[in-house]
Amino acid sequence: MTNSPFSLALEQARLAAACGEVPVGAVVVNAAGVILARAHNLTETDKDPCAHAEILAIRAACKELDDERLTGCDLYVTLEPCPMCAQAISFARIRRVYFGAYDVKGGGVENGARIFAQSSCHHTPEVYGGMHESECSALLKDFFKARR
Amino acid sequence: MTNSPFSLALEQARLAAACGEVPVGAVVVNAAGVILARAHNLTETDKDPCAHAEILAIRAACKELDDERLTGCDLYVTLEPCPMCAQAISFARIRRVYFGAYDVKGGGVENGARIFAQSSCHHTPEVYGGMHESECSALLKDFFKARR
Repeated sequence: MTNSPFSLALEQARLAAACGEVPVGAVVVNAAGVILARAHNLTETDKDPCAHAEILAIRAACKELDDERLTGCDLYVTLEPCPMCAQAISFARIRRVYFGAYDVKGGGVENGARIFAQSSCHHTPEVYGGMHESECSALLKDFFKARR
Repeated sequence: MTNSPFSLALEQARLAAACGEVPVGAVVVNAAGVILARAHNLTETDKDPCAHAEILAIRAACKELDDERLTGCDLYVTLEPCPMCAQAISFARIRRVYFGAYDVKGGGVENGARIFAQSSCHHTPEVYGGMHESECSALLKDFFKARR
């Protein structure tokens, strides 16, 4: 899957780990398959609790398109988005979300708040979970094991 | 309530309306009552779907403190936070949230995803809703009426 959007998201997750950030990476791709943005968690580096990979990738892609909507674009992310990111994905009108590991404790798509299933969610993307799940979770497990 | 944090949040909401943004304003105050940040919606101006008043105020306050946690700080906002902002409030470890108008369609605190009541929510602030509700909703109603 070299250079597939998911492999690029995984590469971002590895870069995150390398700089001491929770290894989650995200990529936004337009309808033609062009990469618009790639990002990884930067909450500690930026001292910004909102600096999750998805938020940073969405903001960068919006800047790239000079548009607050990413209609027709897809997001690839190595971990199930939290409720903050899931709601941002909905606001940005992302078409499809492909995510890696499920996040029972902090996820907000298939777990917890299940943002896209709420009546207050006015745009629901297609969601594909569990992509390259073992690789995505291994990255996270190794990171937290090394930290302890 | 001149110069109270809530009056400053309302002032921000009015500034938002004046520049064509949905009139929601937010203020972050530390435990000593010092204003750390004030912001209003900038989604259209910044072409950023994440640029809600709360997110911008939290990010600015974190920058001010050089810390990704706003432990002991309170947030004042003129509208019930959406799920994205509610989760960001939790991540930032905000102590108390004072909000104005309830938001049946888009809110994520007393409505919809009820973020702070989810088991995936690891920090729950104290919440006081309905502050200066009529003034906060009037601002929003007038804004949307004028837009039609």
